[in-house]
Amino acid sequence: MTERVQDLDEAELLTRIFAVLGSASAASTLLGPGDDSAIVAAADGRFTISTDLLVEGHHFRRDWSSGYDIGWRAAMQNMADAAAMGARPTALTVGLVLPADTEVAFVQELARGFVDAGGPWALDVVGGDLVAGPCLMVAVTVTGDLGAAPAVLRSGARPGDVLALAGRCGWSAAGLAVLGSGRLDETVTRTHPQVRAVIEAFRRPVAAIAEGVAARPHAHAMMDVSDGLVRDAARIAAASGVSIELREPEIALARDAELLGAVAEFLGDPGLVRAWLLGGGEDHAMLAAFPADAVPAGFAPVGAVKARAGQAPAVTVAGAEPHVRGWDHFRR
Amino acid sequence: MTERVQDLDEAELLTRIFAVLGSASAASTLLGPGDDSAIVAAADGRFTISTDLLVEGHHFRRDWSSGYDIGWRAAMQNMADAAAMGARPTALTVGLVLPADTEVAFVQELARGFVDAGGPWALDVVGGDLVAGPCLMVAVTVTGDLGAAPAVLRSGARPGDVLALAGRCGWSAAGLAVLGSGRLDETVTRTHPQVRAVIEAFRRPVAAIAEGVAARPHAHAMMDVSDGLVRDAARIAAASGVSIELREPEIALARDAELLGAVAEFLGDPGLVRAWLLGGGEDHAMLAAFPADAVPAGFAPVGAVKARAGQAPAVTVAGAEPHVRGWDHFRR
Repeated sequence: MTERVQDLDEAELLTRIFAVLGSASAASTLLGPGDDSAIVAAADGRFTISTDLLVEGHHFRRDWSSGYDIGWRAAMQNMADAAAMGARPTALTVGLVLPADTEVAFVQELARGFVDAGGPWALDVVGGDLVAGPCLMVAVTVTGDLGAAPAVLRSGARPGDVLALAGRCGWSAAGLAVLGSGRLDETVTRTHPQVRAVIEAFRRPVAAIAEGVAARPHAHAMMDVSDGLVRDAARIAAASGVSIELREPEIALARDAELLGAVAEFLGDPGLVRAWLLGGGEDHAMLAAFPADAVPAGFAPVGAVKARAGQAPAVTVAGAEPHVRGWDHFRR
Repeated sequence: MTERVQDLDEAELLTRIFAVLGSASAASTLLGPGDDSAIVAAADGRFTISTDLLVEGHHFRRDWSSGYDIGWRAAMQNMADAAAMGARPTALTVGLVLPADTEVAFVQELARGFVDAGGPWALDVVGGDLVAGPCLMVAVTVTGDLGAAPAVLRSGARPGDVLALAGRCGWSAAGLAVLGSGRLDETVTRTHPQVRAVIEAFRRPVAAIAEGVAARPHAHAMMDVSDGLVRDAARIAAASGVSIELREPEIALARDAELLGAVAEFLGDPGLVRAWLLGGGEDHAMLAAFPADAVPAGFAPVGAVKARAGQAPAVTVAGAEPHVRGWDHFRR
């Protein structure tokens, strides 16, 4: 018989989850789960903190993502919010709302996704909460360590800076488009490695966390791209009081464009490539402004920061005003 | 026309919420909301962290609690998890899942509840997330400052200690019982001040946060009572490897018992008093073990810590094994 969360009490369910999480062992964990609060080290006397929510039917579908994928993505996108400040992620807390008929194995897989996504950062899930509810929801909070250096804000971009991107661009959006197309069958992922790559990028994004942390000494401004290149560049422009001229994305991001081109061809619409590059979010690339002579390895120049002039648009693409919209959670 | 969250985009909704929250101004807030992460001070090189979830239909009903009440309770129960370590709450993050037809005024009231509950602690809501979803859910994370002192864990109770309680006991459970009884009408809260008091205690609990912070230098063990005196005393007993002998609660907590007696009389069942005192949670009283000569003002002795002997029960009440069960979220 399939074991479901309604078959266990809370203590038993926690035991199953901790069997996956293992004991808290990260150097930054001073006290792990089990008391009223956890205790986390903050050697330089402060810490970064950020919270994300993922809701079934809005951020993920269980027929498109496994428990492992959902845990992985929740951890990854939250850690990206620490890295986007230049901070090394130090701890996670996780709140799970679980329908009573959720399989215990699914919850354990979700925990395993958290463990694996956080693995390279040697951080623990130091606390959380489990409650019953009408649909699956994941609430994640991440803390980060700035290593005694100033944080990298969105507001520091200066005219003359190079805007550059580290990580993937458009992959997750392309993967979502393939899943939504209904054109996926068992053979496609064997015959089309690019299609397989973008589906995996949607399910288990690999945020540019190491690049964000490494950029801290050099970047004037940074954020992670969660709502698309144009929309997030506009946020840096607004926060910094500058304009941003994006280069033609199919040239600036030629390697992404090549891979996305194969996926667009599979879907029969070459115009998708540009839309994915400019509007696709959730790859959690790092978008940062650097002095022109200090763009670190791993960052590809995608544009230039200019002084804001009168009625000029905040963001242009190859000299023209772009026509893409990002995601909005509420507006219908 | 009533304005609903689906009528606004995310930026506009945030503007309405920040109109209530005000600008981040707490001394512990080094960077408030608006960037990828917030930054919070942690002067002694570490911080406490805890996360709670509240889900509509499970933790609250909108016909029994206003938006203000829900925000207040979410903040209060989370801050109690910091105080239960002996930590002063320093920052909150809030994730809100909102059905699209939620009234904007309701969300603003919820924010106002957060502000007022956190008011005495001069802390900010430093970050969060807003997403659409099928039911109202609130995810709260609190961080705390231990002021360079050791944290007070659940595991430090020693034989010979006095177990003592600060704050209310049974009030919230009594308030819930009145709301569930269907016997409330407009006149009752005028004619029965005790009934009004317990309903307010359910809607807007006042956790013993100051008492928890002040107990830090003296307490050997501490937790906040969220699942009832017996169940939470058993947690201290288990973590500390001791037994706990609770006194007769109607004597040890005579003032609570008197107030609850009037409510039980209103409901026509005097036996409820003992059940509320032993099993009622969510008042977020502080339950702590102290050396016998160091019980601070504000704490009432409720029991004694004894060495764990063989097959003896972890918790007794007036010498007998108690028959109360706490709340479990999953088991049906």
